[in-house]
Amino acid sequence: MRPIVLVLNGPNLNLLGLREPHIYGHDTLAGIKAMVEAWGAGFGLDVEFHQSNHEGELIDLIHGARGRAAGIVINAGAYTHTSIAIMDALLGAEVPTIEVHLSNVFKREAFRHHSYIALAAKGVICGLGVQGYLLALEAIKGLVSLEPPPRN
Amino acid sequence: MRPIVLVLNGPNLNLLGLREPHIYGHDTLAGIKAMVEAWGAGFGLDVEFHQSNHEGELIDLIHGARGRAAGIVINAGAYTHTSIAIMDALLGAEVPTIEVHLSNVFKREAFRHHSYIALAAKGVICGLGVQGYLLALEAIKGLVSLEPPPRN
Amino acid sequence: MRPIVLVLNGPNLNLLGLREPHIYGHDTLAGIKAMVEAWGAGFGLDVEFHQSNHEGELIDLIHGARGRAAGIVINAGAYTHTSIAIMDALLGAEVPTIEVHLSNVFKREAFRHHSYIALAAKGVICGLGVQGYLLALEAIKGLVSLEPPPRN
Amino acid sequence: MRPIVLVLNGPNLNLLGLREPHIYGHDTLAGIKAMVEAWGAGFGLDVEFHQSNHEGELIDLIHGARGRAAGIVINAGAYTHTSIAIMDALLGAEVPTIEVHLSNVFKREAFRHHSYIALAAKGVICGLGVQGYLLALEAIKGLVSLEPPPRN
Amino acid sequence: MRPIVLVLNGPNLNLLGLREPHIYGHDTLAGIKAMVEAWGAGFGLDVEFHQSNHEGELIDLIHGARGRAAGIVINAGAYTHTSIAIMDALLGAEVPTIEVHLSNVFKREAFRHHSYIALAAKGVICGLGVQGYLLALEAIKGLVSLEPPPRN
Amino acid sequence: MRPIVLVLNGPNLNLLGLREPHIYGHDTLAGIKAMVEAWGAGFGLDVEFHQSNHEGELIDLIHGARGRAAGIVINAGAYTHTSIAIMDALLGAEVPTIEVHLSNVFKREAFRHHSYIALAAKGVICGLGVQGYLLALEAIKGLVSLEPPPRN
Amino acid sequence: MRPIVLVLNGPNLNLLGLREPHIYGHDTLAGIKAMVEAWGAGFGLDVEFHQSNHEGELIDLIHGARGRAAGIVINAGAYTHTSIAIMDALLGAEVPTIEVHLSNVFKREAFRHHSYIALAAKGVICGLGVQGYLLALEAIKGLVSLEPPPRN
Amino acid sequence: MRPIVLVLNGPNLNLLGLREPHIYGHDTLAGIKAMVEAWGAGFGLDVEFHQSNHEGELIDLIHGARGRAAGIVINAGAYTHTSIAIMDALLGAEVPTIEVHLSNVFKREAFRHHSYIALAAKGVICGLGVQGYLLALEAIKGLVSLEPPPRN
Amino acid sequence: MRPIVLVLNGPNLNLLGLREPHIYGHDTLAGIKAMVEAWGAGFGLDVEFHQSNHEGELIDLIHGARGRAAGIVINAGAYTHTSIAIMDALLGAEVPTIEVHLSNVFKREAFRHHSYIALAAKGVICGLGVQGYLLALEAIKGLVSLEPPPRN
Amino acid sequence: MRPIVLVLNGPNLNLLGLREPHIYGHDTLAGIKAMVEAWGAGFGLDVEFHQSNHEGELIDLIHGARGRAAGIVINAGAYTHTSIAIMDALLGAEVPTIEVHLSNVFKREAFRHHSYIALAAKGVICGLGVQGYLLALEAIKGLVSLEPPPRN
Amino acid sequence: MRPIVLVLNGPNLNLLGLREPHIYGHDTLAGIKAMVEAWGAGFGLDVEFHQSNHEGELIDLIHGARGRAAGIVINAGAYTHTSIAIMDALLGAEVPTIEVHLSNVFKREAFRHHSYIALAAKGVICGLGVQGYLLALEAIKGLVSLEPPPRN
Amino acid sequence: MRPIVLVLNGPNLNLLGLREPHIYGHDTLAGIKAMVEAWGAGFGLDVEFHQSNHEGELIDLIHGARGRAAGIVINAGAYTHTSIAIMDALLGAEVPTIEVHLSNVFKREAFRHHSYIALAAKGVICGLGVQGYLLALEAIKGLVSLEPPPRN
Repeated sequence: MRPIVLVLNGPNLNLLGLREPHIYGHDTLAGIKAMVEAWGAGFGLDVEFHQSNHEGELIDLIHGARGRAAGIVINAGAYTHTSIAIMDALLGAEVPTIEVHLSNVFKREAFRHHSYIALAAKGVICGLGVQGYLLALEAIKGLVSLEPPPRN
Repeated sequence: MRPIVLVLNGPNLNLLGLREPHIYGHDTLAGIKAMVEAWGAGFGLDVEFHQSNHEGELIDLIHGARGRAAGIVINAGAYTHTSIAIMDALLGAEVPTIEVHLSNVFKREAFRHHSYIALAAKGVICGLGVQGYLLALEAIKGLVSLEPPPRN
Repeated sequence: MRPIVLVLNGPNLNLLGLREPHIYGHDTLAGIKAMVEAWGAGFGLDVEFHQSNHEGELIDLIHGARGRAAGIVINAGAYTHTSIAIMDALLGAEVPTIEVHLSNVFKREAFRHHSYIALAAKGVICGLGVQGYLLALEAIKGLVSLEPPPRN
Repeated sequence: MRPIVLVLNGPNLNLLGLREPHIYGHDTLAGIKAMVEAWGAGFGLDVEFHQSNHEGELIDLIHGARGRAAGIVINAGAYTHTSIAIMDALLGAEVPTIEVHLSNVFKREAFRHHSYIALAAKGVICGLGVQGYLLALEAIKGLVSLEPPPRN
Repeated sequence: MRPIVLVLNGPNLNLLGLREPHIYGHDTLAGIKAMVEAWGAGFGLDVEFHQSNHEGELIDLIHGARGRAAGIVINAGAYTHTSIAIMDALLGAEVPTIEVHLSNVFKREAFRHHSYIALAAKGVICGLGVQGYLLALEAIKGLVSLEPPPRN
Repeated sequence: MRPIVLVLNGPNLNLLGLREPHIYGHDTLAGIKAMVEAWGAGFGLDVEFHQSNHEGELIDLIHGARGRAAGIVINAGAYTHTSIAIMDALLGAEVPTIEVHLSNVFKREAFRHHSYIALAAKGVICGLGVQGYLLALEAIKGLVSLEPPPRN
Repeated sequence: MRPIVLVLNGPNLNLLGLREPHIYGHDTLAGIKAMVEAWGAGFGLDVEFHQSNHEGELIDLIHGARGRAAGIVINAGAYTHTSIAIMDALLGAEVPTIEVHLSNVFKREAFRHHSYIALAAKGVICGLGVQGYLLALEAIKGLVSLEPPPRN
Repeated sequence: MRPIVLVLNGPNLNLLGLREPHIYGHDTLAGIKAMVEAWGAGFGLDVEFHQSNHEGELIDLIHGARGRAAGIVINAGAYTHTSIAIMDALLGAEVPTIEVHLSNVFKREAFRHHSYIALAAKGVICGLGVQGYLLALEAIKGLVSLEPPPRN
Repeated sequence: MRPIVLVLNGPNLNLLGLREPHIYGHDTLAGIKAMVEAWGAGFGLDVEFHQSNHEGELIDLIHGARGRAAGIVINAGAYTHTSIAIMDALLGAEVPTIEVHLSNVFKREAFRHHSYIALAAKGVICGLGVQGYLLALEAIKGLVSLEPPPRN
Repeated sequence: MRPIVLVLNGPNLNLLGLREPHIYGHDTLAGIKAMVEAWGAGFGLDVEFHQSNHEGELIDLIHGARGRAAGIVINAGAYTHTSIAIMDALLGAEVPTIEVHLSNVFKREAFRHHSYIALAAKGVICGLGVQGYLLALEAIKGLVSLEPPPRN
Repeated sequence: MRPIVLVLNGPNLNLLGLREPHIYGHDTLAGIKAMVEAWGAGFGLDVEFHQSNHEGELIDLIHGARGRAAGIVINAGAYTHTSIAIMDALLGAEVPTIEVHLSNVFKREAFRHHSYIALAAKGVICGLGVQGYLLALEAIKGLVSLEPPPRN
Repeated sequence: MRPIVLVLNGPNLNLLGLREPHIYGHDTLAGIKAMVEAWGAGFGLDVEFHQSNHEGELIDLIHGARGRAAGIVINAGAYTHTSIAIMDALLGAEVPTIEVHLSNVFKREAFRHHSYIALAAKGVICGLGVQGYLLALEAIKGLVSLEPPPRN
């Protein structure tokens, strides 16, 4: 059985590709899902990909990873900045977590500079668009001690 | 000629492997240099690797990248939090830049949460140890439009 | 087909008429719904009236307005002050929005003075009780370029 | 005799239509005066319309409304954010007051987010351009218990 | 019919006994439920015990207590620090409420020192572990004017 | 010999029953003393009850508990908010401590929201009037491992 | 010739006796003027009594005191908290000044706690109603070295 | 029997005349006592004059005034800025209180600008040296409804 | 016709030469006027020199420059730090503006460090005494594209 | 007669050797007293060594040094951070003072970083344990112009 | 011998003309050097023109001006906002200094609003582009008491 | 071989004796060097004495002490308040460090109150002039377990 990686997307990420493309790019969430699953397969990882606008559902999903998943990649959207509850869920889940943001949040409004998620994550990747999800998967892969893919 | 990528390391990173290994890990800077150069070669990139404890030297190095390098990967160490001058140098250099930190700075002292570098960078990767440098290289590679290496 | 206007009510507004009437008045939410629908009809607008205590449901409803509704009137209740996610939903929906509050929030506790909704709204009306909803409808009507009703 | 409503305009509003039209629109103050007086007449209200760049004159005008006017509509311009004296004048006048702003002040510089006027007003309308004055009149009209104009 | 007391548990409390036992202790939520129900019975109180990770559900539950329950004991978890909406729900429910925390929140991160719940509660008990729930029940019992149990 | 519990009352608590009864209730300190001693006896605890307006005397009393008392219940009154010295005394005494306040301090002036005592206490009980002292005793009793009294 | 004392009253003090009598009392400004002139005469002082709602006029009046008046008693009303210009005028006038407030400003809104006037005044008297003006005159009298009136 | 007025002096006021005379003047505390007693006698008031460096003693003295004294004049020295306990004592004593300071505290270090005493006092007089005590007595006299002394 | 330059002086600058000469120097405003007019003439500029203590008058004067003057030199005195209204007037006038201060405001009280004027000005000159006015004229001259005067 | 040096110890220092030895070390206060007296003798200084938990007593002791002692060494414990009164006492005593702390207060809680004592002291020594007292004595000795002891 | 004026340029100013020309203009540093030297010659001043990206080198250069140069013109670039060390160097050099910035720093990011240099400078000129250097030279010239050049 | 102690002096300390002698005294750095070396010899310590205005050089020097020196005495001058990099260097060097300042930094500007160095130092000595260096040496000597010199 391949290690499971939960890829979680928070509020409004279902609008990707439509919403403010100058900030978030033109990829849709379906497109990202396909890419992430393909790369995950390449890494020998079993990707479970979710999006929810509900804080409570995200918490439930994180709890579901406890003792079952090898890693979590989370783009918590706006809840990044306001949800101590999601932070606590991640602390409670005890699964290595990488926080991802499509945009460089530090160049945006001041209220997007603080992340509660970062306090529960192993690492953070932001500003690299969809690429960030893939690099996060790659980092998770390193954490679960798989052999790196050959490069030329 | 292969695209050049500047990999810059700020103050105290020469002590890596010696200094506070519970925070920064056991790799030495020489070890990181070797790894980064090898991966760079794998990506078809020409890595120039530097470390300096001098803010002015880092600025000079960044200026030297202007119109010449395809990307900068920078771990500015403590200058991350205090150097508007390095931020301005990066803005002046107009080279795509990825900020890297070995540790997750957001879990450390409050004065390490703010980054001037992030205001001039395309993206940020932190908390992933040496792996962060490699992922940053990979992101830079994407930015200079090379073909991704085959994966299995 | 008449232009659609979404009228959204956030947490605890289902208690209107019961809860703290010295602040919120004696009208019930059902009463407001009736009034708003009647005025909407007078303005040639099709009012869709909702209340939810769930942040995620409000976001889902806002997404549903994208490309379909001519305007949103939103009294986000306490989420006004804490929900960056609803703000982002409104920015993503790209529908002209009027923020409404029954009470004058600026005369109340300091934590009610800041509104994330206002950062995504065209305008704000507060302190005018139920009348505020009707004036907001009227403003929306102006935005969709209908002929103003004759006055005497 | 018809109820009197004072419509007060603070500093720089005499430049309307000239000054920063991307923020304040293209209507001149004379145009707004005409519109407000026409709508006031429609509502059976006697509008007294003033503009002054002098804080003291605005205070004198507010004092003149005490025991005489049925309502005040005030766009105090920049004094909104700095004048405790005008706030105190409104508290002393004991006339129901609606604060109006042409632009959505909450989307502008931080020093425009705070209003002393709001602490003395019944309600606030902002971001709706000239329409805001008319809706404020309509709210005042409701406060003086006139029959609403028929709608079709 | 015995007086009803609602015992509400917020996000992540379903992980009790698993999550960070050095902070929250080794009791599971099921264990606490059993204990609280037993004590409630001893006090002649009818305990309704709930846990939810969803802010909106907690609000719905609180609304359901209005005019029906004699008291609320609430451990709102992380929502304690961020949810004005739950505070407003408690104010709207008009049921005497005791806020409970297992840990002494004042010894933890700064963002756990502020409680919106406390602004709507009669009293607060924290740091006493499961015992806190029982003492809160006892306090509620006093509020509903029951005879104190004999002691020896 | 029964375990000793120190019950300490800080400045102005000698005025209880006289001073601002709408905040502090109508019980006098003598009444509280009698109640606390009776409950203590019921719990098999030896209560030593003190009040002082002198910060230094409270510190001396706390020092006297070191290595002698099984618990401290302290209502430090206004010193709660200003006395690092009493906090240090409690840390130095190494006796389990419960902080008590008659009123819900979080609903009062901002300067009463912060407690230095809480940083040295096991737990905090506030807003429950005299009942708070009794519940604190009960908590202390739990800490010294006595059998809970039978309930019916 | 008797020493001149300027008694200056700032914005809204012309409404005294009408405006918020629970804060400012029932004396009118005319009544205060009569009292102050009578006491001034008793002290051998020539009182010049002014009120203005215009910051600029108050500055002009203060300038007029330079090199001519023996003292200034000033109740600058709301300008107390906002006018650096009046503070500078007093510094420039170089006349001993007593700041007076009818109410105890420190018990009111936070923005009334700071006084620019106090930075240019010899002393401050507040909270003593009309009596404050008379005591200020008496203090000024002491400053100009008159014999104190006999007392019995 | 003549009305009693407590005149309280806080820490370091025993050094008056010696300590920093450029700030506090050359009068000794004994000199002030004599003057205050003489003026008190002139006003038909029985002055009880105390100085203490002990916060607790000042509280005890204030408690002793409850139901016995007609007024308190208090210069709490440095405790003005730090003692919530003395503020609470004054609130508990329910005796009209005038706060006095020899120097104009608002021209000194920022930490001397805030007064807890002012939150419990009827009024404040500062910056007028010894004269401030006498004016405070005079204000107290007004509060106890004595006939003002004839003036010439 | 020569280009017009408005030279505006705010509150208290009429006291120059008298007021605090250690800060503002010994030149009177009349002396500055003479010097500025002479230099203006030398630069081929028509200087209009004004001083007012009234915020509203300064605004009126600025409005009068709109579409008529080639530049404004403004020393707004204390209004620099408090007047958003003057800032807005300058933004509305759309005339190149140089802010001048005689003293180096950054070495003075903290409340003099912030300037609203600077947000509407092209540049700022401070600390150079009367010379600052002349250099500002010279800068304005450069802005209106005159030939620089020959130097030797 | 030998110069007198007052060595003052504030609250909780009587617990030294018992309280938190990982912070304060294993020396008892009696041990420190003996060491300090011995070194004082070696320096030709007459050491008076005191400890008190009472702020007022510390003030009284400082007053007693005025005009009598050649120096004060003070470890004010927790009062360091809260007592303006002790600071004022030191300013009033006009005796050269060295502030001492056993631990490096800057590495501890934020509220221990500020010292009122330092504002009245000639110098500060912290973090050097008991050695700090001895170095402070040595510094005082230098201040009273004694010949330094020969070193080898 | 002509008076020497040091013209110092801080980090990144070597990129002038290349870097962000919409902020800094199109002149290169070489161009500015030429202009400044020419104007200096016109003023009878000997200009020494330097640029460094190294904080330490700037300090060394400033030290070299001590007792030798008649003035310093400094554009410290980003070090303006962060370098207390350069401020101290200027205070130590005791040479009259004018701070210059090409752009109006007050219209840019908040962290560019504060200047340590201004605390050590006689005056500040900003926002006037290259012209600012020339006006600063002219101000320095005034400070060294040369005859102003004739104007026409 | 004698234990090595590095004595490091930061920016502007080369100006000692010249620069602001009312703050820093009249000793030159050369004088201090001589004194420190003599005392070091007396203590059996080998003093290496350096001064640099370059942050990077100070870091290099600190790195050079790693595993070689028995202690560091550092007066980092202005870098004390701004250099996280030097703090990190000290943490990396793992050599016991005493921070020294000639003046009492707590009596100076607010920006000199915070020290990054203190977070990496064992202790701090300030305000004792040159004596501070000698006492720091003495403290270091204690740390390296030498016999204290005989005293008489």
